[in-house]
Amino acid sequence: MHIVVPAGGIGAARFLRGLRAAAPDAQVTVIGNTGDDITLFGLRICPDLDTVMYTLGGGINDEQGWGRADEAFVVREELAAYGVGPAWFGLGDRDFATHIVRTQMLSAGYPLSAVTAALCDRWQPGVTLLPMSDDRVETHVVIGDEETGGRRAVHFQEYWVRLHAEPLAHDIVVVGAEDAKPGPGVLEAIARADVVLVPPSNPVVSIGPVLAVPGIREALEATAAPVVGLSPIVAGAPVRGMADKVLAAIGVQASAAAVAVHYGSGLVDGWLVDTSDSDAVPEVTAAGIASRAVPLLMTDLDAAAAMVREALQLAAELAG
Amino acid sequence: MHIVVPAGGIGAARFLRGLRAAAPDAQVTVIGNTGDDITLFGLRICPDLDTVMYTLGGGINDEQGWGRADEAFVVREELAAYGVGPAWFGLGDRDFATHIVRTQMLSAGYPLSAVTAALCDRWQPGVTLLPMSDDRVETHVVIGDEETGGRRAVHFQEYWVRLHAEPLAHDIVVVGAEDAKPGPGVLEAIARADVVLVPPSNPVVSIGPVLAVPGIREALEATAAPVVGLSPIVAGAPVRGMADKVLAAIGVQASAAAVAVHYGSGLVDGWLVDTSDSDAVPEVTAAGIASRAVPLLMTDLDAAAAMVREALQLAAELAG
Repeated sequence: MHIVVPAGGIGAARFLRGLRAAAPDAQVTVIGNTGDDITLFGLRICPDLDTVMYTLGGGINDEQGWGRADEAFVVREELAAYGVGPAWFGLGDRDFATHIVRTQMLSAGYPLSAVTAALCDRWQPGVTLLPMSDDRVETHVVIGDEETGGRRAVHFQEYWVRLHAEPLAHDIVVVGAEDAKPGPGVLEAIARADVVLVPPSNPVVSIGPVLAVPGIREALEATAAPVVGLSPIVAGAPVRGMADKVLAAIGVQASAAAVAVHYGSGLVDGWLVDTSDSDAVPEVTAAGIASRAVPLLMTDLDAAAAMVREALQLAAELAG
Repeated sequence: MHIVVPAGGIGAARFLRGLRAAAPDAQVTVIGNTGDDITLFGLRICPDLDTVMYTLGGGINDEQGWGRADEAFVVREELAAYGVGPAWFGLGDRDFATHIVRTQMLSAGYPLSAVTAALCDRWQPGVTLLPMSDDRVETHVVIGDEETGGRRAVHFQEYWVRLHAEPLAHDIVVVGAEDAKPGPGVLEAIARADVVLVPPSNPVVSIGPVLAVPGIREALEATAAPVVGLSPIVAGAPVRGMADKVLAAIGVQASAAAVAVHYGSGLVDGWLVDTSDSDAVPEVTAAGIASRAVPLLMTDLDAAAAMVREALQLAAELAG
C-alpha cells in the first residue's frame, strides 16, 4: 500500500510516527511544506522538513517537538557575542550542522529535493520525504504596522516564533507559490497513491502552502485514491499552534466542520473529527464529505497510531 | 609610535602579544596573511587572521596556539554523521560561529577587511588588523602525484593540516597574488609607520604571500622607517611549523642567515638571530643588514616581550 501525506511540522511528524507504527509495511511518501523555510545567519533552514526527518529518524527533541535531542547552544551563544541575530530563532549546535550541510549543497547547485534526500540518508526516516517544491515559496503573514498605521507582511517564522502569533493576522500570503513547480516525484507519488491522509496539521500555513503549488491540489482532487483528513481543531481550538488565528485571517471559522468545508469535498473524501466534536459530523457529511468522530488527541504514539487506523479504516470504506 | 607588522598565524600572534606588553602605548597595524584562507563546509575560514584576533582578544586556545579556548565539537561530530568532510580540519563550535558570521557578511557583499573589522569589534585585539588584500589569494604547495607520477598543487591547509607537510614540497605558488590589490589601509599604514617589525613567522607561506601582493613589498622597501625582522629559524630548524620544508621548495637554506638574505637588504634593515646562531651575524651583516644575536625562543609572554624590545632597540639604532 502506498500512502501519500502532505505534511507540516510537529503535528504531522507525530502523526507520521503513528502511521509508521500502525502500517509498518506501507510505503509512505511525505510531501513536506517548505513555506516555513527561512535563511538565517546565511544558512537555509527548513523547519518542517527537519521536524519530520528528526522525528521519524529518532533525533527529535521529543518534549518540545522540534529541534534535536541532547542539544547544545554554543554557536548561538557565540553569534550573540558577535551581536549577530536574530536571537529569537533558537538554533542548537546539532541543528546548525544540518543547515550547514544543506546550505553547502544548495550553494553547490543541488535542488532542495536532492539535499533532503541526502540528509535523509543519515536519518532513515522510513518514509520518502519530498519537499513540495524545489522553488522558493515563503509564507508571509500580514499584520498591522504600528508605526505607519498600515499593514506589513512578516515571514511566518517571525510571526510565530518572534511575535508569538500575538499580532492580529489580516491575511496569509504564500509568496512565490503561483510560480512554483511541484518537486520531483510529488505528482508521481500522488498518481500512484492508494490512500492520501491529510494529517491534523495547520490547514492554512502547513497544508495550505502545499496545496498552493500549482498542480498539487489538482492532483489530489483528481486521484481515485480516497483522501481522508483529520481535524486539527478539537472543541473549537487548535490542539497546538495558532491555527485559529490564521484561519480567522482567511475567513474560516476555527471548527472541525469549517476546516473540512474549507478543504472542500473536491479534495477530501473523508474527515475525522474528535469525539468532542461529534455534532460536526452531520455538517461535514452534508458538505459531501464522509465523516465520523473518533479520539483525535495525539497524547502518545499509541493514540497517534489509533488515529491513523481510524483514518485508514475510513479510507478503506470509501475505496469500497 | 606607529608599528606595522606583517603577520602569519601562531608565531606572529605570540610575537604581537609580546609587542602589546613591551610597547603598550604603541599604535600597531597588523597586515595579516590571507593566503591560508579556505572555504570548508561552505564557510570562509581565515586561520591567520583568526589566530591573531583570538590570541590578542583573549579567546585563543593557548596550549595549541590556534582555535578557541573552552571549545566543543558538536557541529563537527554532526557533520561527520552526515558523512560531510573534510574531517582533517578540526573546527570547533565556537570557531564555527566566527566563520558563519564572516561568510554571511561576505555573502552580503562586505569585503573581508570590513568583515575583519566587525569581528574585531567583539575581540578588541588592541591592534588594527588588516587583511593583506580583499581579493582572493590562495597559497598552494606543489607536491608529487603518486598516481600519475607527475605533480599536483594542493591548498596549503591540505599540505599542512591533512598531509602534515610530509610530501616533498617542490614549489609554493601564491595563486591570485599578482592580480590582488593591497587591502584598504595597508599602504597607508606602511606609509606612516615609524617602525616595521617582521615577526618570526614562516617567511614562505606566512610573510611570503603578504609580500607577493603587488605594492606591499614595494611600500616596505620604500619606507624610511626601519624594518627589523626576527629569524624564524633557530639552530638550523624552524621553532615551530614546516618553514624548513617550504624554504627548501623555493631553494632557500633553512638558516637564520639565509632567510635574512632571502628577504634582502632592500626589505629588512635589521635582523635578529638567536644567540645559538651568533655565527650568522657576520654573514647577515655582510649582506648589508644590521644584525645581532639575542634569545629568540618565545617560551612565554616575557620572552616574547624581550624579543620585541630587542627588535625595537635595533630599530631605534637604525633610525639613528
